Amino acid sequence: MAAISGFPEYLPAGRRVEQAAVALLESVFSLHGFSSIQTRSLEPLTELARKGDITKEVYVVRRIHADQSDRDELGLHYDLTIPFARYVLENAGHLSFPFRRYQIQPAWRGERPQEGRYREFWQADIDIVGDTNLAGHHDGEVIAVMLEACARLDQELGIGAVRMRLNHRQLIQGYYEGLGLTDPLSIIQVVDKLDKIGAAGVTEILDGQGITAEVIAKILRFASISSRADSIEQDLRALGVSNPRFDQGLTELMALFDQVNQQFPGQVLIDCQISRGLDYYTGAVFEVALVDNPQLGTIAAGGRYDSLASQGKRRYPGVGISFGLTRVLAPLIKRGHLQADRQVPSVVMVLVDDEPTRAQAEAVAKALRTNGIPCEVSPTAAKYGKQIQLADRRGIPFVWFGGLEGQVKNIRSGDQVAAQAEDWICPPELLQPQIIDATDLAS
Amino acid sequence: MAAISGFPEYLPAGRRVEQAAVALLESVFSLHGFSSIQTRSLEPLTELARKGDITKEVYVVRRIHADQSDRDELGLHYDLTIPFARYVLENAGHLSFPFRRYQIQPAWRGERPQEGRYREFWQADIDIVGDTNLAGHHDGEVIAVMLEACARLDQELGIGAVRMRLNHRQLIQGYYEGLGLTDPLSIIQVVDKLDKIGAAGVTEILDGQGITAEVIAKILRFASISSRADSIEQDLRALGVSNPRFDQGLTELMALFDQVNQQFPGQVLIDCQISRGLDYYTGAVFEVALVDNPQLGTIAAGGRYDSLASQGKRRYPGVGISFGLTRVLAPLIKRGHLQADRQVPSVVMVLVDDEPTRAQAEAVAKALRTNGIPCEVSPTAAKYGKQIQLADRRGIPFVWFGGLEGQVKNIRSGDQVAAQAEDWICPPELLQPQIIDATDLAS
Repeated sequence: MAAISGFPEYLPAGRRVEQAAVALLESVFSLHGFSSIQTRSLEPLTELARKGDITKEVYVVRRIHADQSDRDELGLHYDLTIPFARYVLENAGHLSFPFRRYQIQPAWRGERPQEGRYREFWQADIDIVGDTNLAGHHDGEVIAVMLEACARLDQELGIGAVRMRLNHRQLIQGYYEGLGLTDPLSIIQVVDKLDKIGAAGVTEILDGQGITAEVIAKILRFASISSRADSIEQDLRALGVSNPRFDQGLTELMALFDQVNQQFPGQVLIDCQISRGLDYYTGAVFEVALVDNPQLGTIAAGGRYDSLASQGKRRYPGVGISFGLTRVLAPLIKRGHLQADRQVPSVVMVLVDDEPTRAQAEAVAKALRTNGIPCEVSPTAAKYGKQIQLADRRGIPFVWFGGLEGQVKNIRSGDQVAAQAEDWICPPELLQPQIIDATDLAS
Repeated sequence: MAAISGFPEYLPAGRRVEQAAVALLESVFSLHGFSSIQTRSLEPLTELARKGDITKEVYVVRRIHADQSDRDELGLHYDLTIPFARYVLENAGHLSFPFRRYQIQPAWRGERPQEGRYREFWQADIDIVGDTNLAGHHDGEVIAVMLEACARLDQELGIGAVRMRLNHRQLIQGYYEGLGLTDPLSIIQVVDKLDKIGAAGVTEILDGQGITAEVIAKILRFASISSRADSIEQDLRALGVSNPRFDQGLTELMALFDQVNQQFPGQVLIDCQISRGLDYYTGAVFEVALVDNPQLGTIAAGGRYDSLASQGKRRYPGVGISFGLTRVLAPLIKRGHLQADRQVPSVVMVLVDDEPTRAQAEAVAKALRTNGIPCEVSPTAAKYGKQIQLADRRGIPFVWFGGLEGQVKNIRSGDQVAAQAEDWICPPELLQPQIIDATDLAS
């Protein structure tokens, strides 16, 4: 009968923030022509294991009295990309490509809970998937949509400004190949740990794999390149590696950087350290972090994948980006930085004189609702003072006295005027709960 | 790589229906002052087992590499009431009572899948919970809110008219006690199977429990009483049972019937067969079914519970009702009776003359979006005919030629006019996808 670590829940005033964020994301995604889909929460474990070592984080699900009809072992999905890939293959005949979808749902990972890491968390994903081919300009498109969504979340909820880091899998792989390394993917896995284990740790592992000190130095030099300037192309060429894959990756990365940088100047940089680890990406990769709260880590990430979804010879290449809704909101809500200014949607509490006249109060409420004004009827016919106290405790701005021709009082200002329930107009700024920084209220 | 039985998923045009239904429910619930909350998907198995034999349907969840930190055995919740009761106890100090909440989330049950029965399904619940006491008028209130929601779903989505059946646990229990039966709850469990096993089956079980034929006949006679007329009170009194619990249940039930019948005349009837089986109800119980599709079964159900949530001596009595969103929508969507008239939110597809002018098309899209018009830029610079074909296949009503000062063409009517992207006004009826009965389109 208590909170389970890693499974955040909000009070109503916090949940309202989450609703506002979801509505904003849905609005931005829809304006860009993305369709909503939802997938089931469970996938066969065989599907979830496609990425290899992720299985250690999966929640296995089984009917308590499983029988022969439960042939497939099932698990809760740990992201929205694997289920989406499965959905595309399953429904390809009914979808119009390039297929643009958004998906806002929880996912589950059995990781050690800590701030910004949860075991149940909401993600908001957009992806564009083509049938056989997908033009490169869609990479810049999904980035632009997500950066626009982040900017709106900052303007309207104050999550803070974001910065995006870009890299390219072909650039990384081509560079390692150019150094004569035969298993670039294993190097990517090691360098991906740079933030956790530092240069010394990476050096130790690579040394153990028999890689020379000189090559290790070149690997680390490459990973250290990071810039938001055009000069990065020279910096990368100056590494002295010549490899067709490297060249192609560099060309694509610079084109993407230019495209995004024009629309969001100063918000994007190339960072050769990022690779998205073991993920399924094959082209551009990108990560978003909060400028003033980098310790929260990556709040959105994505990339281009050429063959996540394929059926026989048919391939569905795609590009997508996932926003960590719970990662961003939960800490802000828990600390009171984001909160609705009332716990209830109600704008008006209709007071009740005595129980026999409750029907009259309900008629007032009905008339108000017809005009789109959320309201509730006082639960008791206690003294007015007590009823008003309850309204105030809930943050409801108005109370209504009398019948359809009654009096409406703004509890905050004390103003009270005669009003007709059928045509009373609620001040627009009070119609919806507003999102505020509740820590500003501490006096 | 295939559908899992009992886990429905929709194509984008079907998902749009679900979104419309959820938005409608949220709107009705908010207008009545209910706050949104969401609870985690997992609960300790000990919580889920509180109702007894429901454990047979629970999905058990375990980390694939569980360790000592995973002390609690967890399961997916099978309804939204048990998690809500836990939430109320956990957060009682921060909630304002009577606490009114709505909750729209999936739940999971390992039942045999069939039409209207799913293993993963969405429910939309409203409950009002008091601290220590909760006035009786809230029973009628949650019923009225749900019947209003059903009426709106019928008006706007055409789910069909509904009928509600009422009964009262105290009436049932008092009647059985009045017959001299000492374990009324066990009788309730047997009579609850009447629809499945018939009067003969019920008679056989009760006979096996040593109940006389005369008493069994009285049990069955009571269960057969069903009426939407005021005469039901006489019918019930004519059964000849005298018991204080029976009398009190009858008084409360008639008051509730009168209250609901006034607001929704003809839509509600008293039916002494219903009891909500093993559920936690202690007062009024109610079930909603579709008038023209009764074989779909109960689409909403609820009742009054006096002690679902309690902590020591502190009780939180409540009343609530749960709407089976997936049960109602999934069959209608799957058969094509409910579907959006386009697969995408886009109103306009902005055509691209050639790749070098893609930025110009994007500027048009940006201007349209600023005015709240969803749109997408053509993925290719193919011949106009091909681009228009793609727009048409997606159901997008308009295509845009040229730059900010361009031409907009309604694909359906063929009308084409000069327009400025900054001030073009979309016909309001085309701004959002409309929900239609797609089976009407079959020619």
